[in-house]
Amino acid sequence: MSKTVPVGVSARHIHLTQEHIDALFGQGYQLTEFKPLSQPGQFAANETVAVIGPKGQFDKVRILGPARPASQLEISRTDSFAIGVKAPVRESGKIEGTPGITVKGPAGEVELEQGVIVAARHIHFHTSDAANWGIKDQQLLKVRLGGERGLILENVIARVSESYALDMHIDTDEANAAGAKTGDTAEIIE
Amino acid sequence: MSKTVPVGVSARHIHLTQEHIDALFGQGYQLTEFKPLSQPGQFAANETVAVIGPKGQFDKVRILGPARPASQLEISRTDSFAIGVKAPVRESGKIEGTPGITVKGPAGEVELEQGVIVAARHIHFHTSDAANWGIKDQQLLKVRLGGERGLILENVIARVSESYALDMHIDTDEANAAGAKTGDTAEIIE
Repeated sequence: MSKTVPVGVSARHIHLTQEHIDALFGQGYQLTEFKPLSQPGQFAANETVAVIGPKGQFDKVRILGPARPASQLEISRTDSFAIGVKAPVRESGKIEGTPGITVKGPAGEVELEQGVIVAARHIHFHTSDAANWGIKDQQLLKVRLGGERGLILENVIARVSESYALDMHIDTDEANAAGAKTGDTAEIIE
Repeated sequence: MSKTVPVGVSARHIHLTQEHIDALFGQGYQLTEFKPLSQPGQFAANETVAVIGPKGQFDKVRILGPARPASQLEISRTDSFAIGVKAPVRESGKIEGTPGITVKGPAGEVELEQGVIVAARHIHFHTSDAANWGIKDQQLLKVRLGGERGLILENVIARVSESYALDMHIDTDEANAAGAKTGDTAEIIE
């Protein structure tokens, strides 16, 4: 049985707490939806912020909503060199000991003490997909992206939940190395 | 027998004809060596140029010497989006039908009519290495880069010559997707 998954390419983006949204956009500000994401309830917001590192900055970093319990900036390794922040590869939410960064919005600035990561490649599985394919939460998979720049990604983390929709998330470095784009398909080979 | 090769990461760079060096730096100008490269006789020059695409530019693009029969700009796919040039994946020297770009030096500008490529991943083999391992010129190989972001690159082109030293060349997207850097080692697995 071929285990085919859609590919979603994550450009740099940020998740913010409501406290940080307040500080950046004004007390009680609510993010507005630009477009829905593949995971139910998640959305790209119309709002963007600037992030400022020791060697450079990115002016329009998209906020993904809704607000989260901890703020987290996800960048590529290419980005990390550009702004001079040594972001480690981490699973979303596992930000202990990661570097911080300055975030600037229209109403103020916030100094994140931690939260800058390069997101570890992963696949979201609905519980039923995982059961069908015999895949367990946190299992490490090998996934093939075909084509001229074909490659096989190792250590792709399986994340299984009733609230997930099937989608593999890779960053722009991984996508560009493979010549892949959102909407392509990949195959779990192991 | 394990087939281990050193990894060389190629940042964006340009090769120029002597005619273009003359136009950019002044008649009869000779490139000066900043440091030797892994391939015998090749060097990174002290000189840099600006390259200007429709959506952006890079100000300090390293020239690799010596002068070549055709000018060629090698960028990553990430770079190609940044400057708005649709560079195809090509083997070095195969530039027919590729896009052009404006190049600017201290003494003038040159409009390249073609030559902007994303370099196809490849391994340089000395004839003796290739013979030892039973690898033929232009053979497509699978090569593994290990570690946290481990991956297997497909379609790695073997290039065999008496004038080559063993080295695998990948671009910054591929290196960053793998968390690899110059001096790492990779293994030919197929």
